[in-house]
Amino acid sequence: MSVSDDLLDLRRDLHRHPEPAWREFYTTARLVDELEKRPLDELHVGPEVLAADRRGVPDDDELDEWARRAVEAGAREDVVERLAGGYTGLVAVLKRGEGPTVGLRVDIDALPIAEADADDHEPASMGFRSENEGYMHACGHDAHATVGVGVLDAVAESDFSGTLKVLFQPSEEIVSGGEPMAEGGHLDDVAYLLALHVGLDHPTGEVVAGVDGFLAQQHFRAEFSGASSHAGGHPERGRNAVQAMATAIGNLYSIPRHDGGATRVNAGLVGGGTASNIVPDEAFIEGEVRGETTELREYMDAHARRILRSAAGMHDCEVDVEYGGRAPGGESDDELAGVVAEVAGETTGVDSVLDSDDLGGSEDATYLMQHVQDRGGLAAYVCVGTDHPGGHHSPTFDVDEETIRIAVDVFGGTIERLGREAM
Amino acid sequence: MSVSDDLLDLRRDLHRHPEPAWREFYTTARLVDELEKRPLDELHVGPEVLAADRRGVPDDDELDEWARRAVEAGAREDVVERLAGGYTGLVAVLKRGEGPTVGLRVDIDALPIAEADADDHEPASMGFRSENEGYMHACGHDAHATVGVGVLDAVAESDFSGTLKVLFQPSEEIVSGGEPMAEGGHLDDVAYLLALHVGLDHPTGEVVAGVDGFLAQQHFRAEFSGASSHAGGHPERGRNAVQAMATAIGNLYSIPRHDGGATRVNAGLVGGGTASNIVPDEAFIEGEVRGETTELREYMDAHARRILRSAAGMHDCEVDVEYGGRAPGGESDDELAGVVAEVAGETTGVDSVLDSDDLGGSEDATYLMQHVQDRGGLAAYVCVGTDHPGGHHSPTFDVDEETIRIAVDVFGGTIERLGREAM
Amino acid sequence: MSVSDDLLDLRRDLHRHPEPAWREFYTTARLVDELEKRPLDELHVGPEVLAADRRGVPDDDELDEWARRAVEAGAREDVVERLAGGYTGLVAVLKRGEGPTVGLRVDIDALPIAEADADDHEPASMGFRSENEGYMHACGHDAHATVGVGVLDAVAESDFSGTLKVLFQPSEEIVSGGEPMAEGGHLDDVAYLLALHVGLDHPTGEVVAGVDGFLAQQHFRAEFSGASSHAGGHPERGRNAVQAMATAIGNLYSIPRHDGGATRVNAGLVGGGTASNIVPDEAFIEGEVRGETTELREYMDAHARRILRSAAGMHDCEVDVEYGGRAPGGESDDELAGVVAEVAGETTGVDSVLDSDDLGGSEDATYLMQHVQDRGGLAAYVCVGTDHPGGHHSPTFDVDEETIRIAVDVFGGTIERLGREAM
Amino acid sequence: MSVSDDLLDLRRDLHRHPEPAWREFYTTARLVDELEKRPLDELHVGPEVLAADRRGVPDDDELDEWARRAVEAGAREDVVERLAGGYTGLVAVLKRGEGPTVGLRVDIDALPIAEADADDHEPASMGFRSENEGYMHACGHDAHATVGVGVLDAVAESDFSGTLKVLFQPSEEIVSGGEPMAEGGHLDDVAYLLALHVGLDHPTGEVVAGVDGFLAQQHFRAEFSGASSHAGGHPERGRNAVQAMATAIGNLYSIPRHDGGATRVNAGLVGGGTASNIVPDEAFIEGEVRGETTELREYMDAHARRILRSAAGMHDCEVDVEYGGRAPGGESDDELAGVVAEVAGETTGVDSVLDSDDLGGSEDATYLMQHVQDRGGLAAYVCVGTDHPGGHHSPTFDVDEETIRIAVDVFGGTIERLGREAM
Repeated sequence: MSVSDDLLDLRRDLHRHPEPAWREFYTTARLVDELEKRPLDELHVGPEVLAADRRGVPDDDELDEWARRAVEAGAREDVVERLAGGYTGLVAVLKRGEGPTVGLRVDIDALPIAEADADDHEPASMGFRSENEGYMHACGHDAHATVGVGVLDAVAESDFSGTLKVLFQPSEEIVSGGEPMAEGGHLDDVAYLLALHVGLDHPTGEVVAGVDGFLAQQHFRAEFSGASSHAGGHPERGRNAVQAMATAIGNLYSIPRHDGGATRVNAGLVGGGTASNIVPDEAFIEGEVRGETTELREYMDAHARRILRSAAGMHDCEVDVEYGGRAPGGESDDELAGVVAEVAGETTGVDSVLDSDDLGGSEDATYLMQHVQDRGGLAAYVCVGTDHPGGHHSPTFDVDEETIRIAVDVFGGTIERLGREAM
Repeated sequence: MSVSDDLLDLRRDLHRHPEPAWREFYTTARLVDELEKRPLDELHVGPEVLAADRRGVPDDDELDEWARRAVEAGAREDVVERLAGGYTGLVAVLKRGEGPTVGLRVDIDALPIAEADADDHEPASMGFRSENEGYMHACGHDAHATVGVGVLDAVAESDFSGTLKVLFQPSEEIVSGGEPMAEGGHLDDVAYLLALHVGLDHPTGEVVAGVDGFLAQQHFRAEFSGASSHAGGHPERGRNAVQAMATAIGNLYSIPRHDGGATRVNAGLVGGGTASNIVPDEAFIEGEVRGETTELREYMDAHARRILRSAAGMHDCEVDVEYGGRAPGGESDDELAGVVAEVAGETTGVDSVLDSDDLGGSEDATYLMQHVQDRGGLAAYVCVGTDHPGGHHSPTFDVDEETIRIAVDVFGGTIERLGREAM
Repeated sequence: MSVSDDLLDLRRDLHRHPEPAWREFYTTARLVDELEKRPLDELHVGPEVLAADRRGVPDDDELDEWARRAVEAGAREDVVERLAGGYTGLVAVLKRGEGPTVGLRVDIDALPIAEADADDHEPASMGFRSENEGYMHACGHDAHATVGVGVLDAVAESDFSGTLKVLFQPSEEIVSGGEPMAEGGHLDDVAYLLALHVGLDHPTGEVVAGVDGFLAQQHFRAEFSGASSHAGGHPERGRNAVQAMATAIGNLYSIPRHDGGATRVNAGLVGGGTASNIVPDEAFIEGEVRGETTELREYMDAHARRILRSAAGMHDCEVDVEYGGRAPGGESDDELAGVVAEVAGETTGVDSVLDSDDLGGSEDATYLMQHVQDRGGLAAYVCVGTDHPGGHHSPTFDVDEETIRIAVDVFGGTIERLGREAM
Repeated sequence: MSVSDDLLDLRRDLHRHPEPAWREFYTTARLVDELEKRPLDELHVGPEVLAADRRGVPDDDELDEWARRAVEAGAREDVVERLAGGYTGLVAVLKRGEGPTVGLRVDIDALPIAEADADDHEPASMGFRSENEGYMHACGHDAHATVGVGVLDAVAESDFSGTLKVLFQPSEEIVSGGEPMAEGGHLDDVAYLLALHVGLDHPTGEVVAGVDGFLAQQHFRAEFSGASSHAGGHPERGRNAVQAMATAIGNLYSIPRHDGGATRVNAGLVGGGTASNIVPDEAFIEGEVRGETTELREYMDAHARRILRSAAGMHDCEVDVEYGGRAPGGESDDELAGVVAEVAGETTGVDSVLDSDDLGGSEDATYLMQHVQDRGGLAAYVCVGTDHPGGHHSPTFDVDEETIRIAVDVFGGTIERLGREAM
């Protein structure tokens, strides 16, 4: 059994057109094209699926540029127009009689990474390397979107009774698409939510039925401002934003560890100043805090805010902190993961099923999972292994396409079973 | 009495074509044009006036781009070709019989600052604003070069007996043109060296006969490298170059003060990392140390080197430090400044003469001064005041053109007197 | 059922004579007195129970002072003499025919804390407050030692078949008595090792059968030395040990968190310098690192060593680091804890039995546990709850004496059962 | 010519009884004894010479202890009683007809340094080593006080016409006696103020007529308080005062240098915490800032205050800062120093006279100098060289007693001349 040519074509076409967060114009339009061919009950795009309050949306020039590029690459102009303002993503609904509403969440955005161009990198040698130079599907979201379409087909052909919603979520990589999609209304009646990730260092043939260990996360960007002066002539007239920044960095990493579980902090992108002989009047830190739970993230966040403020004050500077994408912690429900594990164990090509494994990272799928769980539903984050030559977020990342077939079978089978058996 | 139209035209043309360090192609060619009209004895350009070992020269692409731009703006191609490799600058020699050899050093480079475009900024309202957008003569070197030409004229018409060399020095702003010009051979027989700066917060009509208080200076660029890792998944696998950088910054500013005199340190341009969720594997500091004397600069430099190395080691990173432009300390000789003061006191338009004042900054004219002083000659760094609306290195800086006339008179008069009276 | 008067007297006498690490002269002698009354098979003190290599032993003056004080308080001189050099502690052996060798480890040292003197602090109001002012049994080791004696009695009167060794371990509070006792030879044939702690925020009536979550620990003392100088006259002549210390502190707390589990670092006691106007030439940090496993402690330790060394080098200072007490991580064996839980469940006065709980601290009982486990034996660290008015290590800490009876019953019962049933 | 036996006895007696700041009970009483033998016009002690507002006064227990010790050593009880509250010091007045009022300031306190006891340390081998173990006249104030008495004798026997006031000032070493003595009223009519220091690395026979380069100074003690917690169990519950302290130290030393002149900062005595396994809840910094002028000191002080406050805030701690002794900057008046230089040049035993030299340290004589200068008077700080075997503030410091004779002659002669010649 192998993945259909249609799905292969779709995955490779998406791979050729990687688009970063909130700029998935081509991707959304291509999916609309694909799904309109199918006998679906509802198809909602952009503004219909996302709450209005979104973080990390680029400015209009940037959005226009990517919209233009999408149309040039063949995207339908009418769809692109409906996505104005970067309201990308879509939700497809299939209604099949009485039964529970099941959601499947797949994400669709790409990364600002230049794809490898070596002969042993299959997308390069087989002709579907990124055509948006400097951007790449280096985390498998092209495969995720493809699986979303494949599962709609599989469930349509199955004995499933109930409603299936596939949520094609934008902007996961900057952890900011999950929250507005969770608030967008389409999850309110979902009883079972499944989310997918391929790979994560698990080989083809291995499935993790319920991933745990999501770290709650909060991005921030702190901008320090002081006053410049001539470093030789009048150092005393400066208010040194780089000194403030350096003090903040040192102290951010030294936030006390917490007995309640894992915490994280990172000052991942920093800079400041203008020239070696000028006392710097501007500096910034783009960073993040995380915690094993949302509470632990908030503990880290409270410390970070105080440190940023105090470091600025220490050097007579101001600081302006903007809080970007974020995600809560999360856990898969054992009962739902149990169904996935059962189905996976019976799926051709699956030779290893793990009940659970720790992600050790963050994912804004947790917003959707929490939304469903808060309303009494169950959620499971499922990893379908794939032999990936390079690591996630590296230029040589690729997906073993057999994984797409396995994922379609596992999710299709699980959804069918959920329709049959009330839990 | 006022400045000649020729000199005004020259100054404004140079102002329209500001060029940064080692890229003074148009400027050099324009000066060659101007000087070839005059009955000079020698004219040496670029490679003939600079020692081969130079710091801070940009790469070939950058040089080619500015050379091309110079030709487009009307620079003579044969001259630009002689400046290949960024060997800009020139030395003009006038021989007038027996007598001492006198040097006059003027610098010719501009700054990477976007010039003001407001109506009250004369270069804008009068049509000679910078045509190299983003670059500007914001420190008066256009006037300096013009004075150099004017003094050649004035001395040619005077009773001066001896040899006059005017050294048009490139790349003062990054403190790296002085050393190769000092080593270029043209100063070896100079008995009296004069150097000029306009402004420095002194108004039109004020002259400082012998500026002191030069700070010896050393630029550096430190590049820290470690190892990146996922900040959520495996912080322990990173070797954090930004932590090393921040530790270095904090400790650089805390080098102990020195009882022997003023010291300075600045981390003026810093940066590092790639994204908020990646432990940073790269970071850099562009900075400088200074001292009231060369020894004090070396004291600061020794501390800085140890701190950069230890900060890297502390976070298991490597650091590579490149040492850029530098200048020694320096002092004007009172005897020579005395002659300047005497002449200035008799010059029309000069209403205040100060024997000396502290620069409180750095200048690589000190390399030339030291070269002459080491061989038994005398040197004086002369400030000719000018009403400048904005501060030095600011977008609204401008020169009161009357200053050019005063400077020509003061230097012309001084040189004539030096030829007459053995000191 | 309640604790015997003998045991109450013993506990209160020990409480009146608290002695810190390696100085338990009175305590050891008092226990020898008590145990010699009993029909034991072997009684080994000091040098016979500890390996020679010990950390954190005070100097001879200090040892002599406490030995003298012990004798003054009534300790037998012949016993105190056998403990020369601070070889305190003892091992009592009871042989009862064929069967397994079971070890019970109790610790005996006190803390440098001044005991409360308020009416609501029972040791004060009932007349057994500390007579060694400034020292106190604030962690219940007086009760532990008493339980050790009580268990010997209980087992002697029971049907136990096998050998019982009670190890009265010195110097737990500075985490340095466990290693030499583990290496002292008496554990080599132990098949089951039980260790006791009272309280730990569990109330009277609650027992934790197998405590886990021990953090591996390493103490250190870093001494920085530089050069002093007059802070006004010649700051440049100093090599500032306090700057080195401060840099080290900041960076120690910022050692990257580890995905493998909990880590800790603390600079708990620091100091340096001599007077406000002298550049400090000496400074020190007494600190510790911990990890959820021995490997994680070693990760922290490797970073700490590099940071201490680099911080010294950064300020041209030297650093000498002495590594003090330490302990590995550890885990209770479920099978053995299971027996404890079973017996506890049947013990009068026990109304709650937890299979396991995290200590979240360090304990050098882990050296003894590991020693037994490495040789194929089983170990369990048992917490017997007690209503303690103040927290551990606080001046108002006290033990509900009913706990002593419960502990004797739980350990006596467990040991009897271990003799009966091969596991 | 040599110093009289009386003065030698006095100096050695004072040397045997060194007393630290505000505790100069014996010293004051001994001087009263000595001066009452002389035909003086006024003698004011303690409360009559000092303004009430004083810094750094020890607590009553400490004062009582030193008062008791003074009486035991032979001090007159009635005098000691008049000094209650640590109002030590005195002013002696000699009126000799018409003429200017001249002041001579000498300081009288000692240091908390244990004196050398080697054979080559003359006070030890000659029997006048400190009898207050741990305290020592290691800065020559015993000689200063003696010179004060000798000058009264010399002027009494001279042709001086005018009024002489000798101010025996307490508490110079903690820079806190100068301010209350300046405010005490006795300087208001002084036209010429002379102040004395011996040594300062100048040999016997050298005199510096007008010392300059006084650094204005401000002592402070910052106490950080947070919350302790168990470093292994609950690091997150601590508010770490040592982290706050370390951040403050690093940033204090990095206060920007000032173009206006020399600045200084020092964290000279620091400490914090209780034990390696406890998150520290207390820490302190005893430090100082200085500046070449009072304004520069205030610049440093303003930065230091902000840094201390921000460092506390950064780690959620509080900080309490107490400001101790301080002194303004100061300069000797050339006209008055000229008279000293003239007289010194004619004095037997003086073979080198310097017009001026930089102190490079702080001295609260500047309060007195400023007080006189603010009222139109002149002041000079005079250094009389002495061969001192060990450095100032070292255990082997000693004074060449010939210096006392020279100082008496130089000051006696200068005062006589000031009486004769109106300036």
